[in-house]
Amino acid sequence: MDEDFKAIEFKDGKLILIDQRMLPNKLVYTDCRTAEEVATAIKTMIVRGAPAIGGAAAYGVYLALVEAEGNQKLFQALCSTIRSARPTAVNLMWAVDRVMKTAEETGFNREAVFEEADRIFKEDISMNHRLSEIGVQVIRKGDTILTHCNAGALATCGWGTALGVIKEAHRRGYGIHVYADETRPLLQGARLTAWELKKAGIPSTLIPDSAAATLIRDGRIDCIILGADRITANGDVANKVGTFMLSIIAKEYGVPFYSVAPTSTIDFTMKDGKDIPIEMRDPDEVRRPGGVLMAPKGIDVYNPSFDVTPHQNITGIITEKGIIYPPFDKNIERIRNGEPLH
Amino acid sequence: MDEDFKAIEFKDGKLILIDQRMLPNKLVYTDCRTAEEVATAIKTMIVRGAPAIGGAAAYGVYLALVEAEGNQKLFQALCSTIRSARPTAVNLMWAVDRVMKTAEETGFNREAVFEEADRIFKEDISMNHRLSEIGVQVIRKGDTILTHCNAGALATCGWGTALGVIKEAHRRGYGIHVYADETRPLLQGARLTAWELKKAGIPSTLIPDSAAATLIRDGRIDCIILGADRITANGDVANKVGTFMLSIIAKEYGVPFYSVAPTSTIDFTMKDGKDIPIEMRDPDEVRRPGGVLMAPKGIDVYNPSFDVTPHQNITGIITEKGIIYPPFDKNIERIRNGEPLH
Repeated sequence: MDEDFKAIEFKDGKLILIDQRMLPNKLVYTDCRTAEEVATAIKTMIVRGAPAIGGAAAYGVYLALVEAEGNQKLFQALCSTIRSARPTAVNLMWAVDRVMKTAEETGFNREAVFEEADRIFKEDISMNHRLSEIGVQVIRKGDTILTHCNAGALATCGWGTALGVIKEAHRRGYGIHVYADETRPLLQGARLTAWELKKAGIPSTLIPDSAAATLIRDGRIDCIILGADRITANGDVANKVGTFMLSIIAKEYGVPFYSVAPTSTIDFTMKDGKDIPIEMRDPDEVRRPGGVLMAPKGIDVYNPSFDVTPHQNITGIITEKGIIYPPFDKNIERIRNGEPLH
Repeated sequence: MDEDFKAIEFKDGKLILIDQRMLPNKLVYTDCRTAEEVATAIKTMIVRGAPAIGGAAAYGVYLALVEAEGNQKLFQALCSTIRSARPTAVNLMWAVDRVMKTAEETGFNREAVFEEADRIFKEDISMNHRLSEIGVQVIRKGDTILTHCNAGALATCGWGTALGVIKEAHRRGYGIHVYADETRPLLQGARLTAWELKKAGIPSTLIPDSAAATLIRDGRIDCIILGADRITANGDVANKVGTFMLSIIAKEYGVPFYSVAPTSTIDFTMKDGKDIPIEMRDPDEVRRPGGVLMAPKGIDVYNPSFDVTPHQNITGIITEKGIIYPPFDKNIERIRNGEPLH
């Protein structure tokens, strides 16, 4: 770990999570001792960010195995509760399936299952460093970078994807400046990314999501770097609501637009972004910013957690296997087949 | 007045304003007895919306005259305090200048000055109804309309500009549905527009600003109708931050985009939108949604109150003299010269 905090840690038989809903005002840790508690933590966004959800879910499968005490039906049911906690991020399903497979292959051996969950956790951190090594190539010295939502240490098992790339550029002394979208409704940009940027000592500025367009038009943004919750076979990217809007503006003004994600985020079975299930969340997230009612009581709300950016608006997808450039479908197929990208 | 509330009213020697910062939870009225109090009300956004600011400022000039008791230097200074309360909306300068001119022409006659202020107030309301009559032509039965910020009765001396057009369509039984952007940072869409829509009984849905792009792409928005704070000679429009972003998305997906404003919003002396001064507001508006700190303390913030939409992204500007279509520069010149638009 490269931070002085751990968003996810498994210790003494329990999963310890930072309650990310309390940041940046309070750094509070919460314990999950059962699979249901893990599912609830994912659902309520105590833990969020596709790779972090994957890591938490992996340990959740281990907790399910312990809890089921050999009752396989119960084990399956508990795993399925975790697997369906949130519908959009594919890492969740990927991690649950991977640990369940180990369970089946090892005759439900607790030690083997724990090791597999732990492997997912550790792999994610080292993957993120690999993503950073690759991604930092798209940043030039002195760049001003815009990011959306949080794809940092808090969104992963450690270090971060998009924010990892940004932190790597800073670590190398590139003299970057970061603009962070506040990211309504849950303000992960204001609460989490700004907090991580401040901790890392990176010069940064917080903006309302709607202020990005002027910065982009005025040439004040050199590139946009953000995460992904699911990538389809044609290169369409589901990510936090607001990403799609940014991609249109970036395309209009010729600003490079990169998504950063491990290849576990790619859903090879899904042809394009139209089929990605988009989670609708509690209207009160919109009605009550900061927990305070700021809209007429009971007003109807449209609150999708994610949106889909078409591959046409994307410059490149930064993965641990290299940067995927157009034609995305062909290059993603190469990754699926284990062929090199270049 | 067509509403059961009055955002602005002059009575018993004082200007009575709804404190719009308290809506929608509390309907609180506040009094301004001096020019300074009017300037402060404008600055702190107790009253906001370009035409409402104009109306309040007009009465403020009258209060300045009473207060100055014949001291012309003081009168000038008080008027200048009001005139500079906010920099972007041109209606503010227009209204102050118009009432000051009457003051000078009538030898600072209190009665004449009050009548001129009152005329601006009443003209604005009847102008808004005229705007509605003209603007409703762009709406078809069953349309779903997206609006941004608040350009309703609260933003004017009564009835509203963009929201007036929308209410007129509803009054005529067009069966419309309205999506209201919440409009960060001060949430005028959530707090004011949603409140007005609910009061008017118009089916409506509140959305985070960043969710509009998906609705537009999916063909769920038939047209976008919003206000303006300043229009330049070439048809560029300054309006609440987020307007520019919407215009890019609307253009990308071929959705009609209308700005509604009285011709007093046109700054004929300004060639294009590049020269419009954009007010930067308190960082805490972004850091503290709902008054609750949701970002690291002291984080740098970029918080422009407005942005500029280039005329190329605008379908038409709805004014009391008709709808201005491209070529905007030629047609705005016709308005300046008092020539008919068609």
